[in-house]
Amino acid sequence: MKALYLLEKGKLSIDEYSEESILGTDDVKIRIEKVGICGSDIHYYKNGRIGQYIVNQPMILGHEASGTVIEVGKNVSNLAVGDRVCMEPGIPDFKSRSTLIGAYNLDPALTFWATPPVHGCLRETVIHPASLTFKLPDHMSFEEGAMVEPLAIGMQASVKAEIKPGDIALVTGAGTIGLMSALSLLAGGCSQVVITDISEKKLKIAGAFEGLIPVNSNEKNLSEIKNEFTDNWGFDVVVEASGSKSLYPSVIRVCAPLGRFVMVGIPSEAVPIDVSDAQVREVEIRAVNRYCNVYNRAINLIASGKIDVKKMIGKTFSLDEAIQAYEYVSSGGEGEVKVMISLS
Amino acid sequence: MKALYLLEKGKLSIDEYSEESILGTDDVKIRIEKVGICGSDIHYYKNGRIGQYIVNQPMILGHEASGTVIEVGKNVSNLAVGDRVCMEPGIPDFKSRSTLIGAYNLDPALTFWATPPVHGCLRETVIHPASLTFKLPDHMSFEEGAMVEPLAIGMQASVKAEIKPGDIALVTGAGTIGLMSALSLLAGGCSQVVITDISEKKLKIAGAFEGLIPVNSNEKNLSEIKNEFTDNWGFDVVVEASGSKSLYPSVIRVCAPLGRFVMVGIPSEAVPIDVSDAQVREVEIRAVNRYCNVYNRAINLIASGKIDVKKMIGKTFSLDEAIQAYEYVSSGGEGEVKVMISLS
Amino acid sequence: MKALYLLEKGKLSIDEYSEESILGTDDVKIRIEKVGICGSDIHYYKNGRIGQYIVNQPMILGHEASGTVIEVGKNVSNLAVGDRVCMEPGIPDFKSRSTLIGAYNLDPALTFWATPPVHGCLRETVIHPASLTFKLPDHMSFEEGAMVEPLAIGMQASVKAEIKPGDIALVTGAGTIGLMSALSLLAGGCSQVVITDISEKKLKIAGAFEGLIPVNSNEKNLSEIKNEFTDNWGFDVVVEASGSKSLYPSVIRVCAPLGRFVMVGIPSEAVPIDVSDAQVREVEIRAVNRYCNVYNRAINLIASGKIDVKKMIGKTFSLDEAIQAYEYVSSGGEGEVKVMISLS
Amino acid sequence: MKALYLLEKGKLSIDEYSEESILGTDDVKIRIEKVGICGSDIHYYKNGRIGQYIVNQPMILGHEASGTVIEVGKNVSNLAVGDRVCMEPGIPDFKSRSTLIGAYNLDPALTFWATPPVHGCLRETVIHPASLTFKLPDHMSFEEGAMVEPLAIGMQASVKAEIKPGDIALVTGAGTIGLMSALSLLAGGCSQVVITDISEKKLKIAGAFEGLIPVNSNEKNLSEIKNEFTDNWGFDVVVEASGSKSLYPSVIRVCAPLGRFVMVGIPSEAVPIDVSDAQVREVEIRAVNRYCNVYNRAINLIASGKIDVKKMIGKTFSLDEAIQAYEYVSSGGEGEVKVMISLS
Repeated sequence: MKALYLLEKGKLSIDEYSEESILGTDDVKIRIEKVGICGSDIHYYKNGRIGQYIVNQPMILGHEASGTVIEVGKNVSNLAVGDRVCMEPGIPDFKSRSTLIGAYNLDPALTFWATPPVHGCLRETVIHPASLTFKLPDHMSFEEGAMVEPLAIGMQASVKAEIKPGDIALVTGAGTIGLMSALSLLAGGCSQVVITDISEKKLKIAGAFEGLIPVNSNEKNLSEIKNEFTDNWGFDVVVEASGSKSLYPSVIRVCAPLGRFVMVGIPSEAVPIDVSDAQVREVEIRAVNRYCNVYNRAINLIASGKIDVKKMIGKTFSLDEAIQAYEYVSSGGEGEVKVMISLS
Repeated sequence: MKALYLLEKGKLSIDEYSEESILGTDDVKIRIEKVGICGSDIHYYKNGRIGQYIVNQPMILGHEASGTVIEVGKNVSNLAVGDRVCMEPGIPDFKSRSTLIGAYNLDPALTFWATPPVHGCLRETVIHPASLTFKLPDHMSFEEGAMVEPLAIGMQASVKAEIKPGDIALVTGAGTIGLMSALSLLAGGCSQVVITDISEKKLKIAGAFEGLIPVNSNEKNLSEIKNEFTDNWGFDVVVEASGSKSLYPSVIRVCAPLGRFVMVGIPSEAVPIDVSDAQVREVEIRAVNRYCNVYNRAINLIASGKIDVKKMIGKTFSLDEAIQAYEYVSSGGEGEVKVMISLS
Repeated sequence: MKALYLLEKGKLSIDEYSEESILGTDDVKIRIEKVGICGSDIHYYKNGRIGQYIVNQPMILGHEASGTVIEVGKNVSNLAVGDRVCMEPGIPDFKSRSTLIGAYNLDPALTFWATPPVHGCLRETVIHPASLTFKLPDHMSFEEGAMVEPLAIGMQASVKAEIKPGDIALVTGAGTIGLMSALSLLAGGCSQVVITDISEKKLKIAGAFEGLIPVNSNEKNLSEIKNEFTDNWGFDVVVEASGSKSLYPSVIRVCAPLGRFVMVGIPSEAVPIDVSDAQVREVEIRAVNRYCNVYNRAINLIASGKIDVKKMIGKTFSLDEAIQAYEYVSSGGEGEVKVMISLS
Repeated sequence: MKALYLLEKGKLSIDEYSEESILGTDDVKIRIEKVGICGSDIHYYKNGRIGQYIVNQPMILGHEASGTVIEVGKNVSNLAVGDRVCMEPGIPDFKSRSTLIGAYNLDPALTFWATPPVHGCLRETVIHPASLTFKLPDHMSFEEGAMVEPLAIGMQASVKAEIKPGDIALVTGAGTIGLMSALSLLAGGCSQVVITDISEKKLKIAGAFEGLIPVNSNEKNLSEIKNEFTDNWGFDVVVEASGSKSLYPSVIRVCAPLGRFVMVGIPSEAVPIDVSDAQVREVEIRAVNRYCNVYNRAINLIASGKIDVKKMIGKTFSLDEAIQAYEYVSSGGEGEVKVMISLS
């Protein structure tokens, strides 16, 4: 059984592993089919760390996966051998206070695939809790299944936005998360979603999705954009997905009265907020920490055709080519949103 | 200046009228362009009353309208002469307690077009509060503008449903209001919307809208439908739009845990509810009274193409043919969702 | 080790038991101190069943308990030997879909103390999940700790009511649950809580709590009560705690616009609801199923003195006297809200 | 008819005025009884301006008032001559979009007593919209009535906090607004309210209210306070009422998972917020702009005895002594929360 290991900063290796855990009564064993490469995987590869999380020992990479159930624990009733599935990579303490209030993503004890020292899923098999393993509809591909994880972050932003049908939204930042947020907002009830960036390449990708309105923020400032799309009322929903500190003061000013401002991007330092700007509109500011209870939602929206993730998927590599795949993505690839590794 | 009057039960007449009100400082004067015929208009025509509302004197009919602004009061800043608009037919006391809490639709003092003794809008001009008059985007037709009113009821159901993106919904009843609710739920964030009826004709109309799933409830019972579409979890949102008393006990049983059950249909007598069925799922039961603050939302969703009302519009008659139009609709027409009268 | 067994309908017995379960890694073992007698305990005693739950084999009674931790599982960090605690009697599947969305009370797999065939806690020791075991503040007595369970139902009603500070509330029914609901509403932010019943005895008990306003509904009808206390606007919150079918049509009519109507009482058959009465006010109807995430809240409100449960506690019996205790309560006792059995 | 005018910065004068407006059909005329002196009144007196609001012409001061209705407009039905009342000082455009969505406090067209160039209410009579004039219960004094305005800001914070019964809250800043917020939170459903400041004088005042827990933030940091009062879970609700920029980074860290952080204080410059601190807890950050739909709530809570404003009221001056009153407050008074001017 092989896996892609990050040995240390800059050093990848395809190595054998032996399953470290045993199948619990509430677990399933999954043969991995597709694994997407995420910016965080590349970040660990290049830097050996993300913030306080440091790769001190060899770690299997990957957390965006789909697969096939090959064994089920004896208490598992919602899944069967042969089911095609995708999996949430974060495992909370199911009995924690955060889990019990419906916010298992906030449990401090949560472990997450490919976050040191926890191994990821870029390997042939994995054992996982059945309750965090979700069946794919027949007509949904493994590639689409592996896209559920990155989409889930956008879905969480969309849930936090408490959209009212017909809301007009702005997303700042057209990277993967911004794009996922914009598509989630559109599918989630907004009538129009404006998405801004300064990269024409990213805006072009966003513009290929029907209903997204790409705007280059070097050409129009946020105040002009607000006037153009909301008749000066302000955006009902704003999702900040760039992590850019400099956007903060102006982005709150383009929220509508009682508008919701959702922070998905993670600025590397404290951002300035003008409290009176928030007060004059009584803006509700919300923060997203990965996702919680949205996998079903994301699958439903992909399956029903309301969100099309297929056009984001670019080149696919085999497990044996996984190191090349990482190098391909590290050097920018061909601009596709997502590169995949296929294990089947 | 001509209008269509209902003189008494069964008697229509196209007569002259003189504008009874004067243009207030916050009002606009509108030349009416299109007026849809609603089931309630026909009901007044055939029965001379709806419940406690009795036609005791000649009343101008019609409440689903679009038009062009031809005069503006001196305090009006959001509209100008020449603007193409549609109008909310209900006018509250703007200083009432209900209005101040954001629920002007619940103001007991609200008057409503073509609800005795208040005249409707099936006439050449009407004076209306600017704040209840909404500009149509350039590419939206007067016919679409006149559809905003019936859509608004579905939008209100959709707002009350507090949809989370990806919810799976059921609408019982595929008449105009059921259809409008189903389209609002789909555009408003649901991934799938099942719509049931026993009329194949209505189901066929519903099925023509991409994303709506028509099911004949004579062929499958609600419990089977729940199992098929929600893997037995239950529908996140159920909108009851048939007004059928007999559906009530079973429809609450197909709601998901914490599901929302929205009552739009108006049963003619008290309905039986099994409280323990609601308790075992902690279902939230909500009730819709026309609409409030949704006109903008409905216009946005039509304008963005997320809701297509054009295909609901059938035959159009001139004002001179208005009586024939009423007879046409009274006798069932050709099954179109909406028949219109054009005044331009 | 002794326990009070219900052998069959009408037959109680104090018998030895051996601990049937072993201490799991996430469990604590508790020496029981006080157990309150609930109406449902008496109902099982007298009838041998409640609805579909039938006592087919000897079952230990009791589910309202406090105690002292005497052993902790190896993963337990929030509790220590010697801690004084109270316990939630319902144990869900912690990995179920209902639990993950924050509604573990709705998990169909939930087991509940003294609900056949599950044993209750009227015994010397019990093993229980640490996450459903709550530490009592030093100045809170074991008696108060045993009152948390019945209070929790009122707390759940209070949470579901989504009280806005200063709301005016009505509770119909002044039995234990009605009283607990009324106290929860008052502590939970209502400015005034009117509580109705036809029993002067119950109203007198309710009236002894500062802030509750007892009204005999034989002397004033609900419409008069609404006018008197809300200046005809309607109650912001209504909690139906009587389970009386006949109240239903009139109780919805006394809700305010956008008022919340919470169903805690469990009528034995379907109740009639006039949908148009709910619609004209857009009433939100909610249903309570026991409780979820409210134990901490109930403890906090007792500990801070905002809810005084001490004055509800009447006679206390020893475990050896438990059968007399049941007979005392069965025959009406002296009208106290709660009779306790002390095991220490 | 006399009034207290601020002629220019530092110059007060008691002068005659003639009623500038006429009684509208929806208005009432009120004989003013008591007027509280607010920090903003003193600020205008000392500085001639607050931010962009500049006193360029003589302006009548005062906005916290109670009075007696002496004349009613012909459409007014909720009030009668002789009614004892208090009044909201902000008057929106009742037909504005903000008003219609239930947020009239956010209407840009709103005018506010004693905010240049609009006159205040420190005069013998005033004409006011009946819908913003609230009847006082018989047992509530004019002094208490004049306290409703400052309490309303705390009430708005409390409504925005979406308290769940039994929440544990922190208020930073024990000035008038902090105190009002703390009392609103306590009455509004919190079990415990910790209030911090560095002024022992203010903490002593706060500590005189049963249920408020004053803590000197020079003696314990926020993290220690969090551990002590919430067992390290974090505060369910935090209201920032000091306007202190330096508190911002640390105050978000003491919020609980899904906690609500309400910004009432108005820092004079942008504050730093660590987005990832908000994200790790998914904190909801809300902003308060005066108040909306809370006057009834504040009156109810004062009337029911849940909030005691009487003990905040210090010295009372007559209208003839109004200038001395302003000088008394300007120089710190005797530390009372509120000084009043009596016009009766």
